[in-house]
Amino acid sequence: MSEQPTVAIIMGSQSDWPTMQRAAAMLDKLGVPYDARIVSAHRTPDRLVAFAKSAEDEGFKVIIAGAGGAAHLPGMVASMTHLPVLGVPVQSKALSGQDSLLSIVQMPAGIPVGTLAIGEAGAANAGLLAASILSTGDAELAERLKAFRAEQTESVAERPS
Amino acid sequence: MSEQPTVAIIMGSQSDWPTMQRAAAMLDKLGVPYDARIVSAHRTPDRLVAFAKSAEDEGFKVIIAGAGGAAHLPGMVASMTHLPVLGVPVQSKALSGQDSLLSIVQMPAGIPVGTLAIGEAGAANAGLLAASILSTGDAELAERLKAFRAEQTESVAERPS
Amino acid sequence: MSEQPTVAIIMGSQSDWPTMQRAAAMLDKLGVPYDARIVSAHRTPDRLVAFAKSAEDEGFKVIIAGAGGAAHLPGMVASMTHLPVLGVPVQSKALSGQDSLLSIVQMPAGIPVGTLAIGEAGAANAGLLAASILSTGDAELAERLKAFRAEQTESVAERPS
Amino acid sequence: MSEQPTVAIIMGSQSDWPTMQRAAAMLDKLGVPYDARIVSAHRTPDRLVAFAKSAEDEGFKVIIAGAGGAAHLPGMVASMTHLPVLGVPVQSKALSGQDSLLSIVQMPAGIPVGTLAIGEAGAANAGLLAASILSTGDAELAERLKAFRAEQTESVAERPS
Amino acid sequence: MSEQPTVAIIMGSQSDWPTMQRAAAMLDKLGVPYDARIVSAHRTPDRLVAFAKSAEDEGFKVIIAGAGGAAHLPGMVASMTHLPVLGVPVQSKALSGQDSLLSIVQMPAGIPVGTLAIGEAGAANAGLLAASILSTGDAELAERLKAFRAEQTESVAERPS
Amino acid sequence: MSEQPTVAIIMGSQSDWPTMQRAAAMLDKLGVPYDARIVSAHRTPDRLVAFAKSAEDEGFKVIIAGAGGAAHLPGMVASMTHLPVLGVPVQSKALSGQDSLLSIVQMPAGIPVGTLAIGEAGAANAGLLAASILSTGDAELAERLKAFRAEQTESVAERPS
Amino acid sequence: MSEQPTVAIIMGSQSDWPTMQRAAAMLDKLGVPYDARIVSAHRTPDRLVAFAKSAEDEGFKVIIAGAGGAAHLPGMVASMTHLPVLGVPVQSKALSGQDSLLSIVQMPAGIPVGTLAIGEAGAANAGLLAASILSTGDAELAERLKAFRAEQTESVAERPS
Amino acid sequence: MSEQPTVAIIMGSQSDWPTMQRAAAMLDKLGVPYDARIVSAHRTPDRLVAFAKSAEDEGFKVIIAGAGGAAHLPGMVASMTHLPVLGVPVQSKALSGQDSLLSIVQMPAGIPVGTLAIGEAGAANAGLLAASILSTGDAELAERLKAFRAEQTESVAERPS
Repeated sequence: MSEQPTVAIIMGSQSDWPTMQRAAAMLDKLGVPYDARIVSAHRTPDRLVAFAKSAEDEGFKVIIAGAGGAAHLPGMVASMTHLPVLGVPVQSKALSGQDSLLSIVQMPAGIPVGTLAIGEAGAANAGLLAASILSTGDAELAERLKAFRAEQTESVAERPS
Repeated sequence: MSEQPTVAIIMGSQSDWPTMQRAAAMLDKLGVPYDARIVSAHRTPDRLVAFAKSAEDEGFKVIIAGAGGAAHLPGMVASMTHLPVLGVPVQSKALSGQDSLLSIVQMPAGIPVGTLAIGEAGAANAGLLAASILSTGDAELAERLKAFRAEQTESVAERPS
Repeated sequence: MSEQPTVAIIMGSQSDWPTMQRAAAMLDKLGVPYDARIVSAHRTPDRLVAFAKSAEDEGFKVIIAGAGGAAHLPGMVASMTHLPVLGVPVQSKALSGQDSLLSIVQMPAGIPVGTLAIGEAGAANAGLLAASILSTGDAELAERLKAFRAEQTESVAERPS
Repeated sequence: MSEQPTVAIIMGSQSDWPTMQRAAAMLDKLGVPYDARIVSAHRTPDRLVAFAKSAEDEGFKVIIAGAGGAAHLPGMVASMTHLPVLGVPVQSKALSGQDSLLSIVQMPAGIPVGTLAIGEAGAANAGLLAASILSTGDAELAERLKAFRAEQTESVAERPS
Repeated sequence: MSEQPTVAIIMGSQSDWPTMQRAAAMLDKLGVPYDARIVSAHRTPDRLVAFAKSAEDEGFKVIIAGAGGAAHLPGMVASMTHLPVLGVPVQSKALSGQDSLLSIVQMPAGIPVGTLAIGEAGAANAGLLAASILSTGDAELAERLKAFRAEQTESVAERPS
Repeated sequence: MSEQPTVAIIMGSQSDWPTMQRAAAMLDKLGVPYDARIVSAHRTPDRLVAFAKSAEDEGFKVIIAGAGGAAHLPGMVASMTHLPVLGVPVQSKALSGQDSLLSIVQMPAGIPVGTLAIGEAGAANAGLLAASILSTGDAELAERLKAFRAEQTESVAERPS
Repeated sequence: MSEQPTVAIIMGSQSDWPTMQRAAAMLDKLGVPYDARIVSAHRTPDRLVAFAKSAEDEGFKVIIAGAGGAAHLPGMVASMTHLPVLGVPVQSKALSGQDSLLSIVQMPAGIPVGTLAIGEAGAANAGLLAASILSTGDAELAERLKAFRAEQTESVAERPS
Repeated sequence: MSEQPTVAIIMGSQSDWPTMQRAAAMLDKLGVPYDARIVSAHRTPDRLVAFAKSAEDEGFKVIIAGAGGAAHLPGMVASMTHLPVLGVPVQSKALSGQDSLLSIVQMPAGIPVGTLAIGEAGAANAGLLAASILSTGDAELAERLKAFRAEQTESVAERPS
């Protein structure tokens, strides 16, 4: 396993980290190196541009972007790179992430963002989907993914208690 | 009245123009010069950055931005200028502009977008609000605005027919 | 900087103040004088009319109006003044401000309200947008706004922790 | 039956009349005199105030108010009279009357609006409810109402065809 | 003031009482006698029929009905009496009263329910509207209502604190 | 196959028949005898009570009830019979059946309505589910159901065209 | 009463049990034997297939399936059995069960799921409806159901306290 | 370019093809071989299982799944393969795809579906995102993608007309 991070986890603010670390934890579990950064579309637009335009050269192969409310980060990164971008709608205070979800998923034809569920489940699944994408060219990672899935299936009890 | 445009009307795509020309028509009626351009946050991100960063130097004092679906244009322009930005949620096909509205209005603290109603009424009102903003420093425009409002009041019939 | 308040912050009830003081705090930070008042569209309609009709003569240049539920205050003030009116949807109990948002933003063509996000972020942004509007005719305020924005950008950490 | 109108039907614009005439038709059927007027909360606020404050002196006993979008007319009339106010949410273009409904029904404690269904059914029912209210002090009207209800029951076929 | 109750306050279950007692408190304040009962449309349908059919003979002039979720009580009572029926959507657990509101307000043409806001504000306003309805034939009550409204207006502070 | 109808299809009005005849068509296809009637909860409440209380004695074993808007028919029938009641939310004009769905499905504990999808698909499925329920005690019907399902599976093409 | 379970209660995860045990409690009260199992559509798809295909042979006559979020369990079981399937939308974290409800109820024509209310009320009602279905072929159970319903009616107090 | 299809486009029914062919058209444009099939989660569950379990062995690297209403196809395929699954919510009749979107995107932690926008834009973007995923291991495809994106940017006019 290379130490060069192949997945970038970016988020709009520090307050998104409790959600987004679920993506990091999943990548840790699957042995996929990543780099986690704060990139605010609204407060640091230059950082956004710089990140998106250099992401491929930095060696990233997949980008996970989490944001809440008028969540523009995933779509704006996607507008400046051809790399696959996965979006995580962070649960917002007033609207529980309905605004985040629609702001991320309803992208116009031409610029895709693969969107996951609102909140922690979505963040964990962004990690999984990133690994799945990387596994299309990495047979060992594919095996680790399959093992993870098998364990997950094993862990489901037969009866509630 | 100066011919230097003080209001920029930008929109995400040609298909937004039938909505956004309501803003242009209102500014025409009030004698406010403007410039209308297509700036797609997703398909022309460099144009977006260039526009937002040079808007003040181009002489614009107010920016009207219309977009539909995952409508990132108003908020992203606002992230790169201190000029007042007004957002118009264009009515989208599947969700009737509910996605556009939430994507525009739910901005985080620090970067405001003054959001108008979904569709043509919102576009017309963006023109009016831009004029209202400019009228805080332009007494003649204030008079024209007041005259417009008085005529509008006059035009309401007493009884339905 | 003049001490004459140029921004009026009005709200429908005392219970809106915890939200609306975010607007006041932002204007304090930017050195913009304001006056905060309770004006209930429903319980004090005469006060509403008196306020809206004298706002210009009182020297106000921008009005920020916050209300929740069937939030009529921003739109009704806007119906009686040509000054720019900014609306803040206060988060309501049952519907989390969805009612407040729609009641404020969905104004008909002819009477605009520039609407901000639901709750505290919207209130803070109303303060910012009011300052932005005033800065179109006040170069010193424009500089303070730019400095605020630059500091805000600086304050974003590189990595989550 | 007196010719003095006891019900006022007001609406925000001429475009609401195709909906609101269902209220008028119901009152005609029940022999209740009414007066139908256009009173725009946003475009004719002075007319709104004048109407609401003189409604009792004009002899009205019940007010039916229809409006769409950010529908402030019913609640603002209610804020200036103790007469019963019934609100009809007119179906709006983008949001199908969901904005109208919430803007009318979610009134704060202290100022009630009795709200009916979105659109034509609601307008017809506003006429019926106004008649029902008047019938609490008019035994003949009560009989006409009961007869209308009985006929309505009779008119329902046993089987679909 | 007669002791004969002229307003019936009915509700679907004991758990609606914390909401509905706001209607009772308002009627107490205005000196309107009422009777509060539990009538479950779903668990006691016979009681519902008996109540609705005898309400006029019991001397009731207005019926206030509160219910939550699939809230059928107000509409079903209205189907069996020509008396004015006011509906209060009780805030439900999962959907915060959105289900209650739609189940009450979206009545078909022919059977009206005057619907108030979700929750306690709606219950208080149902009391007020019932009094307003009764005041169309009771000049003393009209005076008490006007006094209540004037006091309410007086109680609004000038400034937030 | 007995000619005694075991399924009752009831609906709130004639206008629901284009939807509800999909239930009838499905029962015809499966050889299940039914009776279709108009029973309006709001316009014919006595017919509703009479129907619900005699349904078991009439020989019905399952009741399918379709209604739109404030759709009280399914739940009110369920309140007066222990027979299984299936509810079909008819697509409404303004809210596309969202009101119908919530009015039918959100029943309180104690009185169940098995709710199907909005509109024609839901009506067809109500027919299928009624047959499925009857098939728990009718082996021949179970065979016909299985055959229907097998044919349905067969009819799905391999590729789109 | 036979000890052979005739109702299967399945749920997507252990975390659904606090909701789904309301179905179990209702069946206990009515003397209907059941078996409760965890069957995750997503984590244990093979178990799902095995369960659905053998449910009839195991002796089950009705299946109750509860799930939250993208709730695929009820519909997928229904796709592989002709037995009646009842779906319970478990209240989800971000969207309060609105996602669960739509994922369960909006089945296409051909594969029905009888859907109950979101959360505990829905689970209890799934138990009741299962018993109601079984009672179409079990006169003793029908009597127990009627007794339960009568007691439920008896338990409703006359007045709130 | 190999003729072995690396992308599977599956959909729940023939009626989804007008939407899903936008995915096919995009893959055609980018020179990515694909295979389009109908796989109904509800009507052909065995085909679903067979497809999902053999997808990797068939040589597919990415799966695009489109469905409407209670859209279970994407999530159920994802439950049986570790390959990346992209979901397209097809616009439904009553709820305009809101049901499809929530049914697809709100997957629980452990089984991801990368979800695109409702309708044709989402389908086109599913094609693009599939190509983007494949391009992480295919430099020539990456170049074609970049060229497509550059052309798309070029095609945006400067001004509306």
